Amino acid sequence: MISTWDSKNPILFGVGTSKLTGQKLKSFGCKKVLVVYDKGVKSAGIVDPILEQLKENGIETVCYDNVQPDPPDWSCDEAGALGKKEACDGVLAIGGGSAMDTAKAARVLLKNPPPINDYFMVPGTPPMDETGMCPIVVIPTTAGTGSECSPGAVITDTKTGLKRILNSTLTLGIVDAELTLGLPAGITANTGIDAFCHAAEALTSTAPNEMAFVLAKEAVRLVTKYLPIAVKDGKNIEARNAMSLAASLATAGMRGPLGHIPHQFGKGISKHWHVAHGITVGLFIAQALKMQATVVPEQVKLVCDAMGKYVPENATPEQIGEIVFNATNDLLKAVNFPTFASVCGSKDEVLEKWEDFWVGKPDIWSPYKIETKEQAIEFISAAYDAY
Amino acid sequence: MISTWDSKNPILFGVGTSKLTGQKLKSFGCKKVLVVYDKGVKSAGIVDPILEQLKENGIETVCYDNVQPDPPDWSCDEAGALGKKEACDGVLAIGGGSAMDTAKAARVLLKNPPPINDYFMVPGTPPMDETGMCPIVVIPTTAGTGSECSPGAVITDTKTGLKRILNSTLTLGIVDAELTLGLPAGITANTGIDAFCHAAEALTSTAPNEMAFVLAKEAVRLVTKYLPIAVKDGKNIEARNAMSLAASLATAGMRGPLGHIPHQFGKGISKHWHVAHGITVGLFIAQALKMQATVVPEQVKLVCDAMGKYVPENATPEQIGEIVFNATNDLLKAVNFPTFASVCGSKDEVLEKWEDFWVGKPDIWSPYKIETKEQAIEFISAAYDAY
Repeated sequence: MISTWDSKNPILFGVGTSKLTGQKLKSFGCKKVLVVYDKGVKSAGIVDPILEQLKENGIETVCYDNVQPDPPDWSCDEAGALGKKEACDGVLAIGGGSAMDTAKAARVLLKNPPPINDYFMVPGTPPMDETGMCPIVVIPTTAGTGSECSPGAVITDTKTGLKRILNSTLTLGIVDAELTLGLPAGITANTGIDAFCHAAEALTSTAPNEMAFVLAKEAVRLVTKYLPIAVKDGKNIEARNAMSLAASLATAGMRGPLGHIPHQFGKGISKHWHVAHGITVGLFIAQALKMQATVVPEQVKLVCDAMGKYVPENATPEQIGEIVFNATNDLLKAVNFPTFASVCGSKDEVLEKWEDFWVGKPDIWSPYKIETKEQAIEFISAAYDAY
Repeated sequence: MISTWDSKNPILFGVGTSKLTGQKLKSFGCKKVLVVYDKGVKSAGIVDPILEQLKENGIETVCYDNVQPDPPDWSCDEAGALGKKEACDGVLAIGGGSAMDTAKAARVLLKNPPPINDYFMVPGTPPMDETGMCPIVVIPTTAGTGSECSPGAVITDTKTGLKRILNSTLTLGIVDAELTLGLPAGITANTGIDAFCHAAEALTSTAPNEMAFVLAKEAVRLVTKYLPIAVKDGKNIEARNAMSLAASLATAGMRGPLGHIPHQFGKGISKHWHVAHGITVGLFIAQALKMQATVVPEQVKLVCDAMGKYVPENATPEQIGEIVFNATNDLLKAVNFPTFASVCGSKDEVLEKWEDFWVGKPDIWSPYKIETKEQAIEFISAAYDAY
């Protein structure tokens, strides 16, 4: 097994660290900062105290609040144009993955001419030269996406409908679980399950990575133990902190693969049903892990171990698949995750759209290959019935 | 708890990866590489096949083989001058921490005028600007120092006798456990215990770090499980690979603190007795952890947990200290670690040199403070009797 590893994004982690945002941006030399957030985070009262801090540190702010889910290229261009017009010399994101990724894109456009589509990564090319780009700080307000630990952003190319990658490291990620204390149970659950999927998919991909596995295993352990607590008792700061850590670790633990089956098939859900990203991937995770066990049982065993599930020494791949399937479903139940039926209606309605799910063919990151229409339909059908 | 985190050094990890060295250096654009190693590694037959690879990739080599333990400034200047004279455009280290740190220093001098002492880090100053410096690749041949995962080098200032820090990130670290298969049992043991100390000291310092703890805990777990196997059966590649992983993780898990009591008091040993670094720190680790338990029992409990030792819920700090003390001594015994007496002779001989041990006063990274002559002597005496 050959692993490549680094984790370039500096992270400032801990309860209360968001109170250092103004002072950090000042230390980076910023005088006028483009602040990117969505309206929900603003109305939750998280944005204003941070803007206030920037002001106290003598930093002007320019706000972009039109962040969209699965950030489309045009919104990135809009944010970048605003920052450019206002001559911003720094970028701050406050929010979930969409705000962070929009901010990463806007920063590129503060130095380079639009549109953002010109900078999407083509596989195999080296990362973008970030010399001379302004500082960027991101503050996640959910514990799920882990964009603060990702070396890139995921942007939707609206011409093709495809999600594309933009390389972008960060000056600093500030991870403060205090900001997640007010998250409703439903969002806590689906963002937390997104983090679980990042880690579990990383552990079971075609690119096993011994160094990254250390982080991914800890992420699975933390989600299994603390997500049910965070969902039931949102004010439990220990559980919230553990989930913030899990989300950062899970993404730092994804090296190469940006997820496989759940993240691919989830796109079919998001195309037709307007639900949060975490739901789209969580609906497939139990069945996907079960299938991966038939091909990479030793890797799936790592997920079982991290979930605290005993796997007998001589367990067959099928038995390992059953153990991970049951453990994952137990986790989903413990966090009141929505069922496939409650999200998408009847199974027939789902299955007739099979082609929109099977977009990642051939999925190079998935050990278990879904190669025919029949296999795709069989998999979706099993996932529908799984939980 | 506020943690800062990143891990900027890219690592290529896995059995066989050293065979990719020539091709990697070529991809970095190197045409003439300064190769830094010590004579022992050369005579172990590790250097020649790698030099051959560089030749096959059209890369000229210039060899510096006068690497010293605890690399002194003059040796760094010597290596730098050689590389400068030969107009090298890349640096490669093959060896333990001393070779890697000498190479990091030589690279600085390929771009900047000597002496190396002008570039030592003064606490609080930002890292050195590495723009325009040539690529540097390091290949550890022991599983201990973890210099491949460290953002700096430790160089001895021969004017003051003090160890100083030089900032230096790496272009790539190549960690191939195959290169450690021929290490004698004694070197395996003391380098492995060095890695254990890095991780255990990181877990019990005054700068607890939740993200780094994930790596340090795994390092402790791996050393406890695999070091005795690697010592008994040097050709066991699974154990060797696990130890290589542990060494990298342990150093990546040290954030801020460069060790505390064992790494401070160990300097007293190395001043008077010519023994390997790992021995100097290992002689203090069990007693140091026992004392840390009186101040930060919860942190020492992390070491116990990672060593697979059960700590009762209501254990007192003293009980936690006993558990970690016994577990650490068991590990030292299992790897035939030398006793204090076998290294240094009589206790009186050691105690009369107490001032040379107590150099780190006040040690800001140690929760347990050794503040008086009496406490220093008491600690050294207890460490002498510990194992």
